[in-house]
Order: sequence, then structure tokens, then C-alpha cells
Amino acid sequence: MTAKDQTLGVFLDELASEAPTPGGGGAAAIHGATGAALVSMVINLTVGKPKYAEVEAELKDVLVRSEALRAQLTDAIDDDVKAFDAVMGAYGLPRGTDEEKAARVETIQAALKVATDVPLEAVRLCRDVIDLAAITADKGNLNVISDAGVAVQSAYAGLLSAALNVRVNAKSIKDREFADARIQELETLLGEAETLTKKTYDVVKNKVS
Amino acid sequence: MTAKDQTLGVFLDELASEAPTPGGGGAAAIHGATGAALVSMVINLTVGKPKYAEVEAELKDVLVRSEALRAQLTDAIDDDVKAFDAVMGAYGLPRGTDEEKAARVETIQAALKVATDVPLEAVRLCRDVIDLAAITADKGNLNVISDAGVAVQSAYAGLLSAALNVRVNAKSIKDREFADARIQELETLLGEAETLTKKTYDVVKNKVS
Repeated sequence: MTAKDQTLGVFLDELASEAPTPGGGGAAAIHGATGAALVSMVINLTVGKPKYAEVEAELKDVLVRSEALRAQLTDAIDDDVKAFDAVMGAYGLPRGTDEEKAARVETIQAALKVATDVPLEAVRLCRDVIDLAAITADKGNLNVISDAGVAVQSAYAGLLSAALNVRVNAKSIKDREFADARIQELETLLGEAETLTKKTYDVVKNKVS
Repeated sequence: MTAKDQTLGVFLDELASEAPTPGGGGAAAIHGATGAALVSMVINLTVGKPKYAEVEAELKDVLVRSEALRAQLTDAIDDDVKAFDAVMGAYGLPRGTDEEKAARVETIQAALKVATDVPLEAVRLCRDVIDLAAITADKGNLNVISDAGVAVQSAYAGLLSAALNVRVNAKSIKDREFADARIQELETLLGEAETLTKKTYDVVKNKVS
């Protein structure tokens, strides 16, 4: 069963349990998907209203992108579980002979690279949701603009959460060139996201206060 | 049907739809519940391990509180829908006669007070989750400490999200003494939460980097 077919209550029960997945990576993906869904909601409550005719074409384009991001981030919940299981499976490989030991280390290292790239992709997707939330906060229906503020904070929490999983896996990778490139991209995305999230949240706060 | 009995996929579909609920208030509550669940997870993976025997009693107490907060925040998803529906219902009341007009205004104002107090309670609950995430980030199992970082960002996003709903409803309340008292409490909670969230996230970031 995929994560999206579980009930919310069961998902939260499993999150809280001593099973290591779903964990922070799944939560990160849900935060991002929630942000994308709220961008879509604000736009769905904006298009078709005469007052917002001027921004309708632009927002319809944003809606196509937010719905695609929502689908990708919902799938990312399951991708995180798979990547984690592969790392755990690799650590569990036999290490009786020198050959087995070498094969195990190689498999662990390959799995760690995947387990770094999967949350990095979630960071990129959340970064994209933040962009769309910023446009929506500027141009969306004023009556529901608070939801654009929730959207940006949701996506930013997803980004900060996935970032921790990038760091924790990159730390154990021996190929430092690979790991350093990921951390460098991460830092750039984090910096951009922080600035745009603060700006967007303030725009919304001023509109609703 | 309560929100927790819906599948995650259906919940996200409804969030994205043009139906105004579930909206940002429901997302705020889920963020908080996710944060509480991750506090519980880290503790469930800490207690019983000899290395963490010294903090076991304290963390077991935190677990009781995080599970109570998770239940309250999960219920808060439905409370938000009810509070919103009551405001919308009040705006829809007849206003043919002066008596009807007066009754309508009174009902709207009463509903707005509830719709301010419901997200303010969510802010308080998220604030409590942040406290527990801070303890967990300090004392929980190092192998899953990144999840304590996700927990604090989840709860903080929930708090910032619910805060917007407090503001938007408080703005329309004519009883300024009531509204100002809520905004004042909100500002205090926001200030405390920002400081503790940053501190906790940095603790985790340093442990995983």
C-alpha cells in the first residue's frame, strides 16, 4: 500500500511508533505536498472571479505546476521509505569473508548516495512550491490569502526537514566530491528558500492583520 | 467522518480543491500532530536502550505528553472545519428586518470569537510540541536525532500557520478588548517559539553534520 492510501490516523500512528519508517523524510514530503495543495486551493478559489481576471492566465499556469509538485511530493513519501530500507538492508549484508566485507561496504555506499539524492530532490521540489506560494500570496484571492501563508510555511518546513536527511546521509559517504556537491547545492537552496519564505509570509501577514 | 479516518490522498485532494475547508487551519493542525508524532517516535527508539538509561524516566514522561498533544492536534483538524462553518453559516443568516440584522451580526461576532480561539489553542498546542521537541533533540537517541529536528520544524510551521488564522479572524471582531488580548498572547507565543525552534534546529543540525 502506498502512503497516500493510508488513513491520516494510521499514518500518524506509524510515524509515532518505534518503526523507523515512515519518519522525518515522509513528514518532509507531506509538508511539501500540503504546501502545494494549499497553493492549488487558493488558485481554485481565485480563477473565474471577475476581480482577478487579470491574473487568471498566470495563476492557471501556476496551478498546473502546483498540482504536478503535489503528485511528486506525495510519491516522495514512499521513495523515502525505499531509500531508507535499502540502506538498512545493505548494513545487514553478511561480512564473513573479505569479499563479503568489500561488497557490503560498496552496497552501503551506493545506498547512501541514493538516500542523499532522494531528500535532496524533495528539497528542490519544496523550493519550487515556495516559488509558487510567493506568486499566489501576491496575486491570489484576498479572502483566502492566509492559506498562501500556510502554503509557504508548509513547504519551508518540508525543505528544512528534508535538508536534515541530506546532511545525515551525506556525512557517511566516502566519495567526498559527491557529498560536497550535494551539500553545496543544499546550502544554496536553503539560503534562497529562507529569504523568499520570510518575504512571502510577511506579505500575507500584512494582508490579514 | 473525522479527518483522521480519511486517506492521506483524499485529504490532500480536498485541501487542493475549491472547497474552503479543509484549508490552512487543518494543515496547521496536521503539522502540529506530525511534530508530536515524531517526538514520540524518537522517544520510542530511545527508551529501553542501556546507553540512554539515565534519561529514560524523563523521556517517558515527555512521551505521555507528546501522545496527548498528538491526539488533541488531530482532533483540531475537525474543530477548525466546525469553527469555519459556523462563521460561514452566520454570514448566511437572513437580514430582512432590523431584528434579523442585529441577530445576524451578533451570531457572526460570537462565531468569530470561537474561530479566533480555536486556532489560538492550536498555537498553544504547537508551542508545547516545540518544548518537547527541544528536550528530545537534547536527550534522544543520536541515530534518529534528525527526526527531532523535523519535529520542531513541523510544530513551528503549525504554529505560524495557525497564527495567520488567529489574525484574520481577530481582525473582524468588534470587541477589541477580546481581540487585542488574543493578539497579545499570540505575539508572546510566537516570540518564544521562534527562539526555541532556531536553537533546537541548530542543536540537531550540529549533531547530524
